[in-house]
Amino acid sequence: MAERTFSIEDTLSALLAGKKYSTIKDILVTMNPSDVASVFEDMEEDRLPLLFRLLPKEEAAETFVEMDPELQEMLIKGFSDSELREVVDELYVDDAVDIVEEMPANVVRRILSQADPEMRKQINEILRYPENSAGSIMTTEYVSLRPSMTVGEAITRIRRTGVDKETIYTCYVTKDRNLLGMVTVKDLLLAQDDDTPVSEIMDTNVISVNTHADQEEVAQMLSKYNFIALPVVDSDNRMVGIITFDDAMDVLEEETTEDIEIMAGITPSDKTYLRSTPFDLFRHRIPWLLLLMVSATFTGMIITHFESALAHLVVLTAFIPMLMDTGGNSGSQSSVTVIRAISLNELEFSDLAVVIWKEIRTAVLCGLALAAACFAKVMLVDRLLLGNTDVSILVAAVVCATMAFTILVAKIVGCTLPMLAKRLGFDPAVMASPFITTIVDALSLLIYFGIASAVLF
Amino acid sequence: MAERTFSIEDTLSALLAGKKYSTIKDILVTMNPSDVASVFEDMEEDRLPLLFRLLPKEEAAETFVEMDPELQEMLIKGFSDSELREVVDELYVDDAVDIVEEMPANVVRRILSQADPEMRKQINEILRYPENSAGSIMTTEYVSLRPSMTVGEAITRIRRTGVDKETIYTCYVTKDRNLLGMVTVKDLLLAQDDDTPVSEIMDTNVISVNTHADQEEVAQMLSKYNFIALPVVDSDNRMVGIITFDDAMDVLEEETTEDIEIMAGITPSDKTYLRSTPFDLFRHRIPWLLLLMVSATFTGMIITHFESALAHLVVLTAFIPMLMDTGGNSGSQSSVTVIRAISLNELEFSDLAVVIWKEIRTAVLCGLALAAACFAKVMLVDRLLLGNTDVSILVAAVVCATMAFTILVAKIVGCTLPMLAKRLGFDPAVMASPFITTIVDALSLLIYFGIASAVLF
Repeated sequence: MAERTFSIEDTLSALLAGKKYSTIKDILVTMNPSDVASVFEDMEEDRLPLLFRLLPKEEAAETFVEMDPELQEMLIKGFSDSELREVVDELYVDDAVDIVEEMPANVVRRILSQADPEMRKQINEILRYPENSAGSIMTTEYVSLRPSMTVGEAITRIRRTGVDKETIYTCYVTKDRNLLGMVTVKDLLLAQDDDTPVSEIMDTNVISVNTHADQEEVAQMLSKYNFIALPVVDSDNRMVGIITFDDAMDVLEEETTEDIEIMAGITPSDKTYLRSTPFDLFRHRIPWLLLLMVSATFTGMIITHFESALAHLVVLTAFIPMLMDTGGNSGSQSSVTVIRAISLNELEFSDLAVVIWKEIRTAVLCGLALAAACFAKVMLVDRLLLGNTDVSILVAAVVCATMAFTILVAKIVGCTLPMLAKRLGFDPAVMASPFITTIVDALSLLIYFGIASAVLF
Repeated sequence: MAERTFSIEDTLSALLAGKKYSTIKDILVTMNPSDVASVFEDMEEDRLPLLFRLLPKEEAAETFVEMDPELQEMLIKGFSDSELREVVDELYVDDAVDIVEEMPANVVRRILSQADPEMRKQINEILRYPENSAGSIMTTEYVSLRPSMTVGEAITRIRRTGVDKETIYTCYVTKDRNLLGMVTVKDLLLAQDDDTPVSEIMDTNVISVNTHADQEEVAQMLSKYNFIALPVVDSDNRMVGIITFDDAMDVLEEETTEDIEIMAGITPSDKTYLRSTPFDLFRHRIPWLLLLMVSATFTGMIITHFESALAHLVVLTAFIPMLMDTGGNSGSQSSVTVIRAISLNELEFSDLAVVIWKEIRTAVLCGLALAAACFAKVMLVDRLLLGNTDVSILVAAVVCATMAFTILVAKIVGCTLPMLAKRLGFDPAVMASPFITTIVDALSLLIYFGIASAVLF
């Protein structure tokens, strides 16, 4: 997106100051609700209630859904009961649940008191499902058809009830709430004969998920099968809701951000970067920093153990950072690749042997290439160019042999740990660079001093 | 997904051996094409042509689209001209383009010769757009309506032409190929009166993208606005195609994998992990390993420079790995957070000052906490528990001061470099952990020896 030279916020502020409310209204209705929300978030807070009241009813609700919880709360507190009821009436159940989950108890009570009884019941039902489960992100508003209906009757039913449904494009055929099949609006519209019963054109091989399925798994199914919606059934196989592609996209974005944060040694947070206070950032970053600092004790102990040897040949110290970094980088290349493949369901624990064998061969190639390059670099740059005469051919050989072995070990550790973590029920992303680096650092030092002791002392 | 104890592949092999073709057919039609493709990929290659011929025409094409390029190529080579024509006839234009892009020239020629002239023209048109542009991933098969049509006429048109369209749910109202508005099937079905002209119910505030827009940007727009499809227009504002949500989901998955790979110091690859040979992995991993190894020369030079000082106080060496790792971890926490926020369009270059100020305050909190913890750890573990008497209070103070400063520098460098990269037109993901680690390593050593020289020598 191009950077703006002029800002719509300035225009709106100027129009507000001039009380040009109908002009503001004309501007706002041309905008997509998600853009209106982002403009509102950049406006001064005390102007929001007025601006919000200028939106037409339906757009108001859609804009409300896209806003930050803080602003939603502020707006709700300013709403009269009837204003609140108007917004709540227009919400889809799953959006209402998202909002309710973020609000303090007294605001939740007000929202529920303004929702109509049917919606209140559905909100409460969804709230009972565990966080991150399919049940917690589904909506209960879908089009259900009876198998005996004809195509014409089905289309009439959609026309009559569709306005409140999150999607009308995939309809579910149920009997006593049991899911029998699905039919798309495309199937219905393209059917040759309006009198054909729905049961004849419906697809009976319906892929569904249980209310307790993990939301990430569900989102990946939607992405894999290119579905607009996926039905959710309870443990008695009765249909209770649907999950739509747009919610799946949000889940995938959220879960990817979480994975990336964990891989960088940050405990995941719900807030965007700009909305996080320094203390928020501190809280999410300090645990791993502390843990990794303490576990670096091992590297310190190893060096202390070889201290007297190092005192005799201080030149060895100069190569420690390079060896540790190369080991860390090699290991995290493998672990991150494997973590991503696991989260895209490309790898399972049963592939472990295949993965290790692949990484060993890759490590041999990388190890040989880097060791050769390293030998050339050490002899040419460190010895000739920088004139460091302590760097003998033997020292260079020790450094390069360490490099090759470290890469081998790093790649094996890097690919194995995420798969083990997955197997043991941990999040594989935990096994990314910071963790691998700490382990590989200790191992590379052991290899270094082991080879050095054998060859040089 | 639960792990299978029994495999559908075994069943199919047994049925194939027994020539139970109609049973196989019955099984395959119950499965989703994307599942059929993944089963086929696990079967022996010489059985594929036979299995493939058992699929009904439409499912065959859908399965074909989901298969790996290698298998697609093998199947095409075995197809007769009429078999190839049947598959190509059923393909959507954008899927045909994806396949054509992966095939060698002689196979492409065969595919194009079997496509009907209209499709051939459209394929060639899409192939002209640059890789990763909106034009290259769009499909030219969408429903277009004239503004003068009534709702009833529009529905009739959809029923007549919809079967070949990738989505019928969003229809575009055009005049002389100029995009005037859009209308959804939901709008049409829920319209009160079949005689209402489309121009009256259409939404004229249509968000569209240019053929040359970046595919990732387009995918993020679809995700942000929750659209099923987004229209693509050329530079004269004439509508040329649409991009659908399922393609957007694939693009987002691909681009995220690419970001994650780059962040781990791997040049991105199109192949899945299991399909990559060790040489593929080597080629994508060695460039960064080499570059980072060579740039570690600086850390070596810094240590060499302080070699004589180190020889006097070897205990300082023992803390190098911990300081370097903590610096690297702190820096990559900041850089990865900022990189992700940039790729989700949450941050722009104009936020740089805000970001740096936030990171400085976070760094002070993290630095103080870690320095305190480090002091306790060094005095209790290293000095008391391990009995390392070289570790004086002064040494501990130097280590902790270095830690606090390193974190500050690491976080500033970590948040600044990705934003600068973005500003200069590079991929911010390049500035993730491996790169930051190398820079922060050198800086942390300079800080360490700087403080040590001032206090200890």
